[in-house]
Amino acid sequence: MDSKIRRMLSTLVVAAMVPGAAMANSELIKLSKDAANWAMPTGDYANTRYSALNQINANNAKNLQVAWTFSTGVLRGHEGGPLVIGDVMYIHTPFPNVVFALDLKDQGRIIWRYEPKQDPDVIPVMCCDTVNRGVAYGDGKIFLYQADATLVALDAKSGKPVWSASNDDPKKGATGTSAPMVVKDKVLVGISGGEFGVRGHLTAYDVKTGKRVWRGYSMGPDSDTLIDPAKTTHLGKPVGKDSGTNTWEGDQWKIGGGTTWGWYSYDPEPNLVYYGSGNPSTWNPVQRPGDNRWSMTIFARDADTGMAKWVYQMTPHDEWDYDGVNEMILADIPVGGQTRKALVHFDRNGFGYTLDRVTGELLVAEKFDPAVNWATHVDMKTGRPQVVPKYSTRHQGEDVNTTGICPAALGTKDQQPAAFSPRTGLFYVPTNHVCMDYEPFRVSYTAGQPYVGATLSMYPPPGESHLGNFIAWDAGQGKIVWSNKEPFSVWSGALATAGDVVFYGTLEGYLKAVDAKSGKELFKFKTPSGIIGNINTWQHGGKQYIGVLSGIGGWAGIGLAAGLIREDVAAGWHGAVHPGRDTGTGVDTAGLGAVGAYKSLSNYTQLGGVLTVFTLPN
Amino acid sequence: MDSKIRRMLSTLVVAAMVPGAAMANSELIKLSKDAANWAMPTGDYANTRYSALNQINANNAKNLQVAWTFSTGVLRGHEGGPLVIGDVMYIHTPFPNVVFALDLKDQGRIIWRYEPKQDPDVIPVMCCDTVNRGVAYGDGKIFLYQADATLVALDAKSGKPVWSASNDDPKKGATGTSAPMVVKDKVLVGISGGEFGVRGHLTAYDVKTGKRVWRGYSMGPDSDTLIDPAKTTHLGKPVGKDSGTNTWEGDQWKIGGGTTWGWYSYDPEPNLVYYGSGNPSTWNPVQRPGDNRWSMTIFARDADTGMAKWVYQMTPHDEWDYDGVNEMILADIPVGGQTRKALVHFDRNGFGYTLDRVTGELLVAEKFDPAVNWATHVDMKTGRPQVVPKYSTRHQGEDVNTTGICPAALGTKDQQPAAFSPRTGLFYVPTNHVCMDYEPFRVSYTAGQPYVGATLSMYPPPGESHLGNFIAWDAGQGKIVWSNKEPFSVWSGALATAGDVVFYGTLEGYLKAVDAKSGKELFKFKTPSGIIGNINTWQHGGKQYIGVLSGIGGWAGIGLAAGLIREDVAAGWHGAVHPGRDTGTGVDTAGLGAVGAYKSLSNYTQLGGVLTVFTLPN
Repeated sequence: MDSKIRRMLSTLVVAAMVPGAAMANSELIKLSKDAANWAMPTGDYANTRYSALNQINANNAKNLQVAWTFSTGVLRGHEGGPLVIGDVMYIHTPFPNVVFALDLKDQGRIIWRYEPKQDPDVIPVMCCDTVNRGVAYGDGKIFLYQADATLVALDAKSGKPVWSASNDDPKKGATGTSAPMVVKDKVLVGISGGEFGVRGHLTAYDVKTGKRVWRGYSMGPDSDTLIDPAKTTHLGKPVGKDSGTNTWEGDQWKIGGGTTWGWYSYDPEPNLVYYGSGNPSTWNPVQRPGDNRWSMTIFARDADTGMAKWVYQMTPHDEWDYDGVNEMILADIPVGGQTRKALVHFDRNGFGYTLDRVTGELLVAEKFDPAVNWATHVDMKTGRPQVVPKYSTRHQGEDVNTTGICPAALGTKDQQPAAFSPRTGLFYVPTNHVCMDYEPFRVSYTAGQPYVGATLSMYPPPGESHLGNFIAWDAGQGKIVWSNKEPFSVWSGALATAGDVVFYGTLEGYLKAVDAKSGKELFKFKTPSGIIGNINTWQHGGKQYIGVLSGIGGWAGIGLAAGLIREDVAAGWHGAVHPGRDTGTGVDTAGLGAVGAYKSLSNYTQLGGVLTVFTLPN
Repeated sequence: MDSKIRRMLSTLVVAAMVPGAAMANSELIKLSKDAANWAMPTGDYANTRYSALNQINANNAKNLQVAWTFSTGVLRGHEGGPLVIGDVMYIHTPFPNVVFALDLKDQGRIIWRYEPKQDPDVIPVMCCDTVNRGVAYGDGKIFLYQADATLVALDAKSGKPVWSASNDDPKKGATGTSAPMVVKDKVLVGISGGEFGVRGHLTAYDVKTGKRVWRGYSMGPDSDTLIDPAKTTHLGKPVGKDSGTNTWEGDQWKIGGGTTWGWYSYDPEPNLVYYGSGNPSTWNPVQRPGDNRWSMTIFARDADTGMAKWVYQMTPHDEWDYDGVNEMILADIPVGGQTRKALVHFDRNGFGYTLDRVTGELLVAEKFDPAVNWATHVDMKTGRPQVVPKYSTRHQGEDVNTTGICPAALGTKDQQPAAFSPRTGLFYVPTNHVCMDYEPFRVSYTAGQPYVGATLSMYPPPGESHLGNFIAWDAGQGKIVWSNKEPFSVWSGALATAGDVVFYGTLEGYLKAVDAKSGKELFKFKTPSGIIGNINTWQHGGKQYIGVLSGIGGWAGIGLAAGLIREDVAAGWHGAVHPGRDTGTGVDTAGLGAVGAYKSLSNYTQLGGVLTVFTLPN
């Protein structure tokens, strides 16, 4: 198909998705359709992070200036980004999870500030920094998902709590880091804690009352997973009875992981919610034989009932911590000459997947980083990756240090969300270009204690020195269109705009604007700290703005965020998780293996949570 | 005198001061004469904070843009500002007093980082936030004066410590907050801790070895004060024997305060160092009868020996905490038709003083805020303020709440330094426009325990709502030339430039550029946090830059910095220091009385230490 027609089609079908949704939460849908707002953490239900605003374009982006800034008063990693609704911006912080309503008419004057009271004992059970990925709006409320796994609804006007619900038990290591999503009259939240043997679930609460409406677990009996043995399909076939327990030994599914701390998407037409589940617990595969279903799985669930329509397990029996939680981007794109209702997903395991989002049919599965070596390819019939034995930590066995595995446990991409432009038909993907050594060891489960069972160290692919790429991806063909090298992993979410400018942030702290078609750098600016937040855009008083939270941290930045770069503080479970068999220094394997690779980040940036807002000069 | 001639003369005499100084630390003098650098915390020895750079001028300042930013990774109040020497910027933080060397060729890449190891027990004995006012350069070293009163010399190239010297004992409440000053082969440091009965002193250390060369106490025997009874003068007359003890009852001078935490100036021609001493301890005047010499005093000391040439006590027997530590600006200006070698000082007590800096003759003493009411005027013969009995907390007595005193204990100006432009002949003064209630009470001294003895609350002058003014002052006439209202106290240091632009920051976080002649606002920008740092400027790669640290805190911002705005944390000695006789809520009198007045600051800004660098577009 001619690329013009393809672009036209893409635009049409994305637009066509919205009317169907009008039955749902109509105010939120209306708000999110108006590009002046950034009304959802994901930009839209389809998770495209595309804005129809085009005042800032590829010709004038070089003139961008900082309009105003706002310090959140909190250090450590700032993931996610603010919401903008009309004249008000809602901004969040890592633990202690402060929420601010800022007045856009007055350069960020604080309308209200809400700080929950949380037991700081939750901090040490947060695996990969005390991050939070943002608040959601719906029904006149701001939904904050606290570190201690409490979901609280705040009155959007006053910041006063309306209701709160405890979603899980932080004493077991279950924590909240993800951004909620409001769908119809429900607010959806997941759970973090795969490193503590937490069994993952997605839960829907009533927006008005906070009452739990449904919960679908990642593993367990069919009644827990909300899987219909006859109707729920895996690559077109019914999954059969007890699919959430029968690939586990004994009761291991009860501490099976598969947590759900990524992003959620929603397609109103089939009324399906999409998300992925994380790694099975522990990180030592020898201890948990079997496929460990439904960890590492894309779920399509009915928004009203939570019943799974289809599932697809990307990495059966994970041996590398390749969580499947990354966002599902919904776009109607040409695949093999036909426009498909696609779901596009860039997995931690290094494969970019394109599926039919209605049926769960696997259309494309290709590596989005040539460094990926743990599997040769994905068998398109079975959907299974073909694992290379020398990179199989299960095959190599316990207490053996398997070296040179690419990608590292961080994945070729982690939670940092990609963007899709219907104008170019391309996906813009922040990636990690990192490999690892991985040594599994036996570990026993104690509630609330780390249940990791592997020592890792990370480094760039052989012969290379850069740790990241920012790429443009053709999801119909499974091909990289262009790729920009970055010295560090790109741990910020991307933004695509109708101005044909794509934005992302770097761990050193640069906000970058690149040409959507060529990847050519148009603008860069050094923000106060490293960027792990997601870029967004809005319009206010007739001007388009670009906003980003800087604040180094997250898994890649955990060395700086938790002060693990110094030998004397690299101990503890964040550190060399198995000091007896430590493969490097305590520092290098600290932070679940990430500290060593990113140590030189401290030559570029320091902690600090600051929103930087950009615009064109008058 | 015609104003043109006056300006010309001012320029000439400032320039004339420098050659004489060439005998001193020649490298530092050379560096500070090159306006491309900002080689001293004060800009120059004369403390003018004037830059000869004029690329940014009153016509183009409106086009200023943010060039780059840098988060220090430390919250709480960021006073002072960075140094710039060639391609390198040296930047400091509040406790834990991290120092960074940043590469200006690479937008602030970190060349080195130094973090001293300090006992965090020093934090609770810092009266007015954990501030630090900057590092000094000299002899290839960066001098850091730590919170724990340790002076450390770092190799400027590597950041490695060369020597360190303990200047006083933090266990007694003696702390370091001031910026050192390098004069000849010595580095000068003062001491903080007037609220703990610390006896103030200025001390000179050998730049090469860290060996103590001389120390001049503010009170005590002549051998301690380095006062010559016959030669040291007060308003032209020898002070006589034991002047540092004979206005004290018994041994009270030993815990007499008069700390020295402000700025230091130096005039190479008479070889004199100038600075002021702070309040006598305690804040309860009834407990310490007498003039309490030499608290509240301007000192002129020989740089080589420390011997006092002259002294002038501005506020004998302080009853309001009007510390005399503010900077002495040295400028040759017309006074009464004659050009005088002047020292200009804006005191906490609300009077702007002009003295002959060679002889100590008092030339002008006028109120620089019409709200000042505690004294009618200064008697020019005796140099004594004429105190109004109803605002005399001594006269009203212990346990009586004296109300409506202006200025508040914060002073009409605190340490936030003013600037002087030889082009306009004007002084640019950040001021507080705040009044107070003050209730002294009996307190007993215990080493290391607060020795305050008064409960305060603060508020704007009657019938007014703004808490600050930024003014231009004619120091020859003792008159305000123009005055800009600010909603909050202006707690940032000013910068004057040859572009006839004056810069200052606000507690809400605005960096402002105003016309030096008219005060007209030319530019403002909302930095990440409230500004209590000092603006400075430098040139790099042919471009002029303006830099400022934001980071709310300090005395005015202590409510935010130490979290005292909440009732439940406003206790402790920072809080209602005499809870039994608390005149308002615990919150309002917290922070030594400052919290109440500045409570609404939390509607504008949050903590966060960030350097913001501005320049004109290419």
